[in-house]
Amino acid sequence: MDIGLMNKEYAALVDAELERALECSGAPEPLLSAMRYSIEAGGKRLRPCLALGVCDMLGGKREMALALGCGIEMIHTYSLIHDDLPCMDDDDMRRGKPSNHRVFGEGQAVLAGDGLLSFAFEYMLEKGLAFNEKNYYRAVYEISRRAGVSGMVAGQARDLEAERGASMDEAELRYIHAHKTADMLAAAVLAGAYSADASDEQLDALERYSEKMGLLFQITDDILDHEGDQALVGKTLGKDEKSQKLTYITLYGIDEARKLAQSTAAEAEAILSECFGEGALYLKKTVSKMLSRKY
Amino acid sequence: MDIGLMNKEYAALVDAELERALECSGAPEPLLSAMRYSIEAGGKRLRPCLALGVCDMLGGKREMALALGCGIEMIHTYSLIHDDLPCMDDDDMRRGKPSNHRVFGEGQAVLAGDGLLSFAFEYMLEKGLAFNEKNYYRAVYEISRRAGVSGMVAGQARDLEAERGASMDEAELRYIHAHKTADMLAAAVLAGAYSADASDEQLDALERYSEKMGLLFQITDDILDHEGDQALVGKTLGKDEKSQKLTYITLYGIDEARKLAQSTAAEAEAILSECFGEGALYLKKTVSKMLSRKY
Repeated sequence: MDIGLMNKEYAALVDAELERALECSGAPEPLLSAMRYSIEAGGKRLRPCLALGVCDMLGGKREMALALGCGIEMIHTYSLIHDDLPCMDDDDMRRGKPSNHRVFGEGQAVLAGDGLLSFAFEYMLEKGLAFNEKNYYRAVYEISRRAGVSGMVAGQARDLEAERGASMDEAELRYIHAHKTADMLAAAVLAGAYSADASDEQLDALERYSEKMGLLFQITDDILDHEGDQALVGKTLGKDEKSQKLTYITLYGIDEARKLAQSTAAEAEAILSECFGEGALYLKKTVSKMLSRKY
Repeated sequence: MDIGLMNKEYAALVDAELERALECSGAPEPLLSAMRYSIEAGGKRLRPCLALGVCDMLGGKREMALALGCGIEMIHTYSLIHDDLPCMDDDDMRRGKPSNHRVFGEGQAVLAGDGLLSFAFEYMLEKGLAFNEKNYYRAVYEISRRAGVSGMVAGQARDLEAERGASMDEAELRYIHAHKTADMLAAAVLAGAYSADASDEQLDALERYSEKMGLLFQITDDILDHEGDQALVGKTLGKDEKSQKLTYITLYGIDEARKLAQSTAAEAEAILSECFGEGALYLKKTVSKMLSRKY
């Protein structure tokens, strides 16, 4: 199996559907352009690809996983736009391009984010009226919960407090990442599972897999940041050093963090093997790809 | 019928349910406090009261109208928080109290808004799994559409352009108000109707009624602003005069605007009489109350 090819196929489906959906959204200018700018900014479509991969593994309904995956991608994108705002992380760049508010202004960027979040639900709910299946609505609910005030928004809010100097320990670091990052990965994996009427046992295994993936994502993120910082040693201090931010590196050191990434990946693969055997090839490859990611 | 008493009963139901829902939301601090601050800031609960009034008129399921009405109130409240931000209308005060970002800071205010919008859908969708009725999901979809990028967010985005100096004519003024204000009133009225399995004819009449209510809301808003400005004549210029903003007063003059308000109210009442007869007493009273509002 060539995971690159499968990802390419999945991502092409997602890109085409996102383009079609926004085209028909009825959004006026400049709102539409601002939403499109960030949706088309070159994201890897990790979350919708996971939804499609899980759905295909279980022989589910691809059009459902696609709809849910696209809704999740819109929600993920809104969160990046708001996260970059001057009153949040104040990032001028995102994925090598000027961030949304640098192009459209802060007000329109707030609205582009609000618009993508609203449209995610409008889009998924319109599809729901056509599908008319309880499991689909369960998935939309699961997405709303994991995107919301006990999920992603909760992680963002605690992270903002930490950035503003609130004290942080390992439990707080894990809370922030579990919600800011892992919850939406889990939403995508479970969306794929609901599209295939997964059993409770399958849902449970996939939830545990997605928790490992969320942790792995964060550790590798911290490792990449650290390596980026190391490359700058002698020139300027890295972001983490400057802000004394708690990361898996500052917590465990680089060697232990690398080991933790490897053991977490092994645990994720073991969960997949145990419950899905050979069928889980695509999902297993996403684990090794995450472990060795370079960006 | 004492509309004051009915509003009081409806508003008490809504207040209690909103309090209960937020209590169980799982939001961490300070996110929860920031969301609560604006939800409990003394809004009149106009939209959920309309949903309940329509539902009761048609003998529908009150628990559905209540759930949808509370979801709409959360969405309405998020829109006020974001609207007050420095990069939007930059308002320090809202309903006689400091606006959300003045109390919690801009970052947390953005997240409180994101949180309320997300939680509105999480809350409505969780209820949906219990109700399990297609008409309920139709209503949630209708709310998402009218709150979204072809509805309220569209109105906000065009309004922001106008505030930033984009030229505006009467068609643009009507577009902004139809979406920024009228759409969410219509969502509330239609939510009540869906809770009662309303016929297409009833839905059509109620949609026309809500359009008139939206227009009436905006004209009376402009009249009240104008009267506030007049009271300040000789002291300082009013907001409209300063910004040369197009309103129904600058467009038609105060006398014509008052006449337009009266004829719009009469049209709203005529729609109700024609389709619902005596049963529409509560809704008719909301029209006369809107026409004579003092704030």
